[in-house]
Amino acid sequence: MQKEDCGRMAGFFPFWDKLTGEEQKTICRNAASAEYPKGAFIHRASEDCVGVLLVKEGQLRVYMQSEDGRDITLFRIDEGEACVLSASCFMQEITFEILIDAEKDSEVLVIPTAVIRRLSQENIYVENFIYKQAAERFSDVMWTMQQILFMSFDKRLAVFLVDEAAKTGEDTLTMTHDQIARYTGSAREVVSRMLKYFEKENLVELARGRVKLANKKKLQELARK
Amino acid sequence: MQKEDCGRMAGFFPFWDKLTGEEQKTICRNAASAEYPKGAFIHRASEDCVGVLLVKEGQLRVYMQSEDGRDITLFRIDEGEACVLSASCFMQEITFEILIDAEKDSEVLVIPTAVIRRLSQENIYVENFIYKQAAERFSDVMWTMQQILFMSFDKRLAVFLVDEAAKTGEDTLTMTHDQIARYTGSAREVVSRMLKYFEKENLVELARGRVKLANKKKLQELARK
Repeated sequence: MQKEDCGRMAGFFPFWDKLTGEEQKTICRNAASAEYPKGAFIHRASEDCVGVLLVKEGQLRVYMQSEDGRDITLFRIDEGEACVLSASCFMQEITFEILIDAEKDSEVLVIPTAVIRRLSQENIYVENFIYKQAAERFSDVMWTMQQILFMSFDKRLAVFLVDEAAKTGEDTLTMTHDQIARYTGSAREVVSRMLKYFEKENLVELARGRVKLANKKKLQELARK
Repeated sequence: MQKEDCGRMAGFFPFWDKLTGEEQKTICRNAASAEYPKGAFIHRASEDCVGVLLVKEGQLRVYMQSEDGRDITLFRIDEGEACVLSASCFMQEITFEILIDAEKDSEVLVIPTAVIRRLSQENIYVENFIYKQAAERFSDVMWTMQQILFMSFDKRLAVFLVDEAAKTGEDTLTMTHDQIARYTGSAREVVSRMLKYFEKENLVELARGRVKLANKKKLQELARK
């Protein structure tokens, strides 16, 4: 790997200064650079176990796919962030199927699973980073799944936005998240998170006290589901 | 708390011998004993944050509830196990809603959230235990949700079992998990885990190479959903 990549490791890994010099060298020596054009498929959990991915540039998308090919975005990994779930095969208990592709043209550093596995056995701070990250990502995912699959709140919110736009004749609604929560019988926090999820999916654009329907066609589809 | 309870802590907490004597005393001093009769409601994540639960006797059930009151069991906590998700409020990122009740008459030790929060800030092994447990539980949950809500595999398996029993006229099917996987177009591992899930829900009884339909009525209901 390039020397400058090694210099960036401390930014990706909060445990960097808890490693011995030898451990730091092991990571740097074994990190491989990879480039993925937008849309490229990177990883399927059941088939390989590529390792920890560090996003130098671009953005990755982590998602699940149902048998009929529908997919649901779980979260995105931005520039400067690490993804440990692509090395999840070494966490015994993690057995569900996730897929990863490149959301934008991306440059990624890959730390092979075997290297991370050995370090996490030797060094509690490495193990801690991995499980903490996994717990936080899972929690996000659980929230999304609960709202979308269990409560259909994505659909209910889409119905509300589409109806409101039809009523007012405007594609930009002047409403706070609080008001939307009251109308949809939900909590403000739930509304805010789902709107942010919609924004990442390019369905809406958010500004203070305003929601702009950026892709009314997709929102209408979602509302009809 | 009772002195004998303090002696049991090492069994619940793999990090016990990484604590200082003072830290051990803090946990023992602050642990409170509680008894819950079978069916008693213990915890709702959004309303309280009871702390880490240690099951001395009995069994707890962790579940989610949809708006129409349907609930889905996520996992169970058996005798000798600890549940950290009931202290999840101090993990910033954990915001979804879980509920806990007593599946059997249970005796539980409760370590208050404030105590665990302070210890996990002081001691990396405590923090590590919590996130590792959370990651493993979430992974289980993700698997269940993916199969049930996304793939409807619980329904498909129920359909297969009910049809097979009708065909053979027997309530005990002589089949390996491998064979069931081939018939249902699934993977053996997925079949085995879902059968275990069914067994915990008292829908089937499992023996080597055999599946007994223990509650045909409920399986038929599941198959019709």
